[in-house]
Amino acid sequence: MNSPAKFIDHTLLRADATGEDIARLCEEAVECGFASVCIPPCFVAQANRLLYGSEIAVGSVIGFPFGYQTTATKVFEAHQAIELGADEIDMVINLGAARAADYEYVMEDIRRVIAVAETALIKVIIECCLFGDEANRRLTEIVALSGAGYVKTSTGFAASGATVEDVSLLYQTASARVKVKAAGGIRDWPTCKAMLTAGASRIGTSAGVIIMQQWQNENAELPCR
Amino acid sequence: MNSPAKFIDHTLLRADATGEDIARLCEEAVECGFASVCIPPCFVAQANRLLYGSEIAVGSVIGFPFGYQTTATKVFEAHQAIELGADEIDMVINLGAARAADYEYVMEDIRRVIAVAETALIKVIIECCLFGDEANRRLTEIVALSGAGYVKTSTGFAASGATVEDVSLLYQTASARVKVKAAGGIRDWPTCKAMLTAGASRIGTSAGVIIMQQWQNENAELPCR
Repeated sequence: MNSPAKFIDHTLLRADATGEDIARLCEEAVECGFASVCIPPCFVAQANRLLYGSEIAVGSVIGFPFGYQTTATKVFEAHQAIELGADEIDMVINLGAARAADYEYVMEDIRRVIAVAETALIKVIIECCLFGDEANRRLTEIVALSGAGYVKTSTGFAASGATVEDVSLLYQTASARVKVKAAGGIRDWPTCKAMLTAGASRIGTSAGVIIMQQWQNENAELPCR
Repeated sequence: MNSPAKFIDHTLLRADATGEDIARLCEEAVECGFASVCIPPCFVAQANRLLYGSEIAVGSVIGFPFGYQTTATKVFEAHQAIELGADEIDMVINLGAARAADYEYVMEDIRRVIAVAETALIKVIIECCLFGDEANRRLTEIVALSGAGYVKTSTGFAASGATVEDVSLLYQTASARVKVKAAGGIRDWPTCKAMLTAGASRIGTSAGVIIMQQWQNENAELPCR
């Protein structure tokens, strides 16, 4: 299997991550050739400086991880992240509105963030583990209609992260209108591979370096590759 | 012991809390006579309508629960919450800056939120479980100097919530310059009582109704009270 590097969003979203941690993350991203770094909003300007001239995108999170900020706050936060140099935005939907089946609210919340996003790539987190298959299909449909680039399974901070079943369901529902990002609990190459095989185009993980090592070991064992 | 009701911030900060859940929370707060409800920003306007004319304060959370939004976003979020009717604001410090001992950043982040808070009461969450006693003393000192009303132990979403030891340490360090709010894992009256005894003036809990029932049962057993 080809290198998974360009599918990986190298992620550090721990509450107490420091500027030093972010600097190391950016170095690793360059070394491994990951798609992006995914970092807290307060570090976007720093990552943008550190990754200047590289092909690594700067990604940040909006309304993270609970999604229950007002739409106006999400819009402000997204606009500022982009001004500070974010190329990609992972936003959390209003999960309470989704729980209450107020899909109009969910859509408007996404659309207003997309409206200020200019050329930034928007990934919309629906937190699959909170909902059943029917609601997850409905939410994927909304994301597909919203103009976002990706529907993303999980924040990584709820009861559980991505499952292969979730990724399949999102991938089939999206049917190429939006791509699928799998995140949450993806800590090794076999799990990463399973998510890619199920239809994910991006993998959010803080274990990118380990995954690359495992992938290399697997491929070193194939003598005729 | 007197009723703990007026010390309790009746709290619902689950990611998928709905408007219906918030309505029930507000009803319970009125019935029990709690100090406030503590709710997500997207429900402040609703709670403000529901609690109009009552003595229950509307409280919301800013930069919650990870605190790594930019200061500008926290300021925007706080300003909007207050405009929508929040009387109290529980904000999370920049935990990464605290971890990196960049106390100047921590202070400035708090001060700029306080600057837009007008008459709102500000409680500053330092997430005690992430730090040792020395850092927690230092952070309490910063909160005491910032002009905030409270230093608060925990978000309730980190590895652990308030401990009696934390509350004592914060209370002694604050030495009456700021009050102490204990939150996280306080689910019964004995724990609540222990926190109050250790120096807390507010208790953040989603188990307020149960705590009141347990307090009433305890006091019903005292015939000569």
